[in-house]
Amino acid sequence: MADFKVTPWEVEGEVDYEKLMRDFGAQSIPREVISKLPEPILLPLRRGFFYAHRDFDKFVEDAKRGKPVSIVTGRGPSGRMHLGHILPFYTAKWFQEKMGASVLIPISDDEKYLVKRKLKIRDVEAFGRDNLIDILAVGFDPEKTRIVIDLEDTEIYRPTVIVSKRVTYSTIRAVFGLTNESNIGWVFYPAIQMVHLFLPQIIWEPQRVLVPVAIDQDPYIRVARDVAERVGLVKTAGLLSKFMPSLESPTGKMSTSGGGEEKVIWLTDDEKTVRKKIMKYAFSGGRPTVEEHRRLGGIPEIDVSFLYLLYFFEEDDRKIKEIEERYRSGEMLTGELKEYTAKKISGFLREHQRRREKVLDEGLEVVLDRYRLRDEERDKIREWGKEL
Amino acid sequence: MADFKVTPWEVEGEVDYEKLMRDFGAQSIPREVISKLPEPILLPLRRGFFYAHRDFDKFVEDAKRGKPVSIVTGRGPSGRMHLGHILPFYTAKWFQEKMGASVLIPISDDEKYLVKRKLKIRDVEAFGRDNLIDILAVGFDPEKTRIVIDLEDTEIYRPTVIVSKRVTYSTIRAVFGLTNESNIGWVFYPAIQMVHLFLPQIIWEPQRVLVPVAIDQDPYIRVARDVAERVGLVKTAGLLSKFMPSLESPTGKMSTSGGGEEKVIWLTDDEKTVRKKIMKYAFSGGRPTVEEHRRLGGIPEIDVSFLYLLYFFEEDDRKIKEIEERYRSGEMLTGELKEYTAKKISGFLREHQRRREKVLDEGLEVVLDRYRLRDEERDKIREWGKEL
Repeated sequence: MADFKVTPWEVEGEVDYEKLMRDFGAQSIPREVISKLPEPILLPLRRGFFYAHRDFDKFVEDAKRGKPVSIVTGRGPSGRMHLGHILPFYTAKWFQEKMGASVLIPISDDEKYLVKRKLKIRDVEAFGRDNLIDILAVGFDPEKTRIVIDLEDTEIYRPTVIVSKRVTYSTIRAVFGLTNESNIGWVFYPAIQMVHLFLPQIIWEPQRVLVPVAIDQDPYIRVARDVAERVGLVKTAGLLSKFMPSLESPTGKMSTSGGGEEKVIWLTDDEKTVRKKIMKYAFSGGRPTVEEHRRLGGIPEIDVSFLYLLYFFEEDDRKIKEIEERYRSGEMLTGELKEYTAKKISGFLREHQRRREKVLDEGLEVVLDRYRLRDEERDKIREWGKEL
Repeated sequence: MADFKVTPWEVEGEVDYEKLMRDFGAQSIPREVISKLPEPILLPLRRGFFYAHRDFDKFVEDAKRGKPVSIVTGRGPSGRMHLGHILPFYTAKWFQEKMGASVLIPISDDEKYLVKRKLKIRDVEAFGRDNLIDILAVGFDPEKTRIVIDLEDTEIYRPTVIVSKRVTYSTIRAVFGLTNESNIGWVFYPAIQMVHLFLPQIIWEPQRVLVPVAIDQDPYIRVARDVAERVGLVKTAGLLSKFMPSLESPTGKMSTSGGGEEKVIWLTDDEKTVRKKIMKYAFSGGRPTVEEHRRLGGIPEIDVSFLYLLYFFEEDDRKIKEIEERYRSGEMLTGELKEYTAKKISGFLREHQRRREKVLDEGLEVVLDRYRLRDEERDKIREWGKEL
């Protein structure tokens, strides 16, 4: 097993997900919890992309009993968004549509500013606005969804002070791997993120908040859980996923950090570009020659195109089974699999881009305004925690 | 020389002011700078209570040339205010009246909340409102004075993020003596305080900002000076004072931490109470018996009553000289000196309390509203630093 390193800011090497789950102290998701979910069950949930959790069972139970529940999933605006960035938002939308969850979306422009040396305030603000086009294109219900932009909705500083009193520097340093040379904004930021996770309980009422994230973000959930009950709130629940495979590696993380601009699928890529990238870069589980492939068959488990279909883009269970069998037997060649995957992704992106255009036609700020905190919710933030 | 320890939160032992100044790297105030000040020169300035500085000469020069200058002096609301707390505000008022300085008054309820283990949010808020009665009683010009309450005027979080990116944990730990077990809000707070010092430059225009404080607060000024130019602002100037002598010690710091409620002069104390406290507790430079006192004379330098008169309450230079001589020669007894001092302090407090009543009659919130940030100033805070 290759060495690997996972912090909320960095993923290095080939990740062993089971070890990560054990190290973090999370649980694997029991079959019976998945089976309680409303049909059609979200693909990444029923096909094991989300593979670990904290209190997801309690979240499902509360939702089924009609209690208020909510989802928090955010974005740190350090660049344009690619396919791997948007899928958590479609996950949140599924929970909203199928299980009635409210959704809170924090835009952590402060975090990206503090962590990325070269970014200026105007950079993170510009990326923030660009990213919001994509997030709004997902189509959340404005009545049950709020977007909080850290550097604009600064009311959150107040509850953050309350939370930060309950977190020591050593805890943060141990959990997040900071050094003494880290800037003090970065040291403070985990408290802001904890407040993001608490915010549905503050602006509405105490409730189970579920955070569906890649497992590298779990440290935030753990420290939030430690603090939640001490400030009179329900413990945060986590739904933890593997990383969206990068084009070039089935266990890597889709990111511009290593591969560069060319090797990720941007949300604005057209059909031709998507096809070209999949054809050229998608790591294949096929064999070097057609002859060998026919004889030995492909390995779907390590084929990035297959994994994209399995986790995100092939809804039809019979179809995915058929592809798996045909590929493994050698009947289906890598080329055919890639063509099919490229079409599926392009189809998804076409729909996303259509809604993206709609947001721009209406005007970004106009649409965004529907998701801003209401005055009474801002008051709730200002009133919270007087006894703490 | 007894050991002593000075941090912004703690003063222990007998303070050696000259050593403190040298250790901190501040300068003593040259005579010729004092002589340029408008008459009548503020008592604590011309009698050496303010004894060290950073760039005070530049501040005076700018003010004399009609350039905009400002004063920042704040309050951490952890209890009621005593005589030692209010004098910096009267100093600020002198600079406003005589030299045209604007004044910015931060109420750091966040700091007190983070640093004092037992205080709840509602405690620091209540103390904050109580303290504002006294601060407003000083009678600042509402056109040239702003009050910023950290947990209410949360716009300041945004510039604080910018500043905090430029300060490392090790810097803060070294300068402020934090430990790894300090909470992360406390670690972040120095950046908030730096923003307080920068705020006149942000909401108005770049200018020399003078911070008149007891020398224990100098670390804040030093770190602010290091950062100021890196964010396009003028270096903060400091006017550094000795500690207001406590009743029981001429070199201690007036504080409830050691002596308890009974041994400080509260701003609400009446004439009888003031007299009683001075008579009972004020450390005397006199001799044990009248006979000895007549023969050897008193020591004004260590007599707290004399120091109060010298630094704050006896405007008349001839009168203070006369008292000093009569006391040193043994002609004036401790009792007479104390009576005189108690009267002077009571006179000051009577005036202060009269203005305090006026604030309450008008309504605290009504008066406070005149000093709140204007909308365009809040916009300036939100717009500042895009290129940083």
